[in-house]
Amino acid sequence: MDIQKIIIVSPMIKELAAYLEHYNLDKEFRYLTEDTLTEDDLEWADAFCGFQIKKNTDYSKVKWVHSLGAGVDGFLYSQDWDENVLLTRTVCSFGQRIGEYCLSYILKDVQAHQKFAEQQSEKVWRPITPELLGGKQAVIYGTGEIGQKVAGILSAFGMKVQGISLSGKPKAEFHQVAAIDSHGSVIKEADYVINTLPLTDNTADFFDKNLFEQVRRIGFINAGRGNSLVDTDLMDALEKEQVRFAVLDVFREEPLPASHPFWKHPDITITPHISAVTTAKEAVDCFVDTLRRVESEQVLENKVDIRKGY
Amino acid sequence: MDIQKIIIVSPMIKELAAYLEHYNLDKEFRYLTEDTLTEDDLEWADAFCGFQIKKNTDYSKVKWVHSLGAGVDGFLYSQDWDENVLLTRTVCSFGQRIGEYCLSYILKDVQAHQKFAEQQSEKVWRPITPELLGGKQAVIYGTGEIGQKVAGILSAFGMKVQGISLSGKPKAEFHQVAAIDSHGSVIKEADYVINTLPLTDNTADFFDKNLFEQVRRIGFINAGRGNSLVDTDLMDALEKEQVRFAVLDVFREEPLPASHPFWKHPDITITPHISAVTTAKEAVDCFVDTLRRVESEQVLENKVDIRKGY
Repeated sequence: MDIQKIIIVSPMIKELAAYLEHYNLDKEFRYLTEDTLTEDDLEWADAFCGFQIKKNTDYSKVKWVHSLGAGVDGFLYSQDWDENVLLTRTVCSFGQRIGEYCLSYILKDVQAHQKFAEQQSEKVWRPITPELLGGKQAVIYGTGEIGQKVAGILSAFGMKVQGISLSGKPKAEFHQVAAIDSHGSVIKEADYVINTLPLTDNTADFFDKNLFEQVRRIGFINAGRGNSLVDTDLMDALEKEQVRFAVLDVFREEPLPASHPFWKHPDITITPHISAVTTAKEAVDCFVDTLRRVESEQVLENKVDIRKGY
Repeated sequence: MDIQKIIIVSPMIKELAAYLEHYNLDKEFRYLTEDTLTEDDLEWADAFCGFQIKKNTDYSKVKWVHSLGAGVDGFLYSQDWDENVLLTRTVCSFGQRIGEYCLSYILKDVQAHQKFAEQQSEKVWRPITPELLGGKQAVIYGTGEIGQKVAGILSAFGMKVQGISLSGKPKAEFHQVAAIDSHGSVIKEADYVINTLPLTDNTADFFDKNLFEQVRRIGFINAGRGNSLVDTDLMDALEKEQVRFAVLDVFREEPLPASHPFWKHPDITITPHISAVTTAKEAVDCFVDTLRRVESEQVLENKVDIRKGY
């Protein structure tokens, strides 16, 4: 595929341009924000690179669209996509990042950080023995690039890590992988449940009352997408101690509105969608690597399957 | 060595006795507390097993003393020891425990847990990119059983881990090991400094003004002994930003007195000596294993070198 004219749309245009310059690519670039992007730009371009598509805008004129994020629901979810347009996504340190994010909150739990902080504020010396990770059970929804990396990190501590995927196909990093329609028996035993699923029709509203009724006192971590969680059902599950605590990095509406009850819940930790940030350098490295593969028609590991939606 | 009569002194006598029963050992036991232990008991016994020795009591009548803790400063530090009495210590999951303890606080730091908690309390959505562990530098004082395990855990995340020991002898888990008298160049680059050293004449008051003057904005974790740290020098080092934060599990006086300024310092985390707890089961397993080796005169990995003090 011949790619000469490229549009880059991002809030971090300057950083991206600076890193791109190092590569000295013999291409024409238009660096734009979502506000300044026009249909004329898309008419001009061979390729578009950004975090999502602009509503009511026709992207079918470009040959290739590259997502600056790992998730591509900003391109595909509840939207039509012309299958003639190649869609690729950024794959970089996301797995490691989400793995360290999840591990940090699981360790916070077993090491009783909060309890010790409370005791310190009252000058109370009361030993509690931290639990070792070994033997704890985690269930990870999503066994792709990211889920595998998270599983590898947790398994290294002797945790028993089960995976849940559409197909249930075994993956080396997991103790076992179950298909999503038979996950019930697996999550009964879980100490921690981690969502890394992409948002698709199958995964929207997936973490709901029915699911939470099958677990007991879990730590729930959502590093996937906010639309996969039914917010009110999580609140109920916390009330019923089906969920002991939740760590949420993604939300139905971002920024999370000030009126949302999650903010003030003592057992919910909120982080502002930072578990898998694309740094400018990593984004550019992945984009340039993908560009070269697109041009020389090599295999693309990061090509999106439009029908699956990830 | 023939061992028939054994004294066990511990605040958790009941748990120890329960686990010991499973082994069905053909030995005589006296389960005592430090208060009820007499010279007559020591006269009677072949072996003594406990956390420390009672002041002004002669232990030289027994053949073997086994420490229920990993540290043996309760037996040797500032005290005489009859070198004819074999001294062994408990070695079990201490390394893994201290490793997970240290990792939990390092991850808390790079994942900005505190900042996000503050933002949540004010309903502020302000993304900060967590840093990956890869490339961060840790210096671990002590390259024994515990230091090696901690190093292995941190290295697995791509951290560059330097060790400091008396001899400077290389160990596989460390990027490099420096001798304690030439540690200056190593700690200049450190992001995190972790103490796992035993308390000996060499390590008393070791973390002082002179040491802290060589570092910049480190995270300091003390999982060794409280007497190795000069408390007022740490307070000054925090003031001067030589130390960015400290996590302290051990103190000169335990429980830490309510009047101590550590309690209220915003950049000090206090935990009540829990980073390497001996569970009753682990303590018994290690004791019985050592007993068998003592009786059959096998090599003892956990024999204490009286002159070195660990």
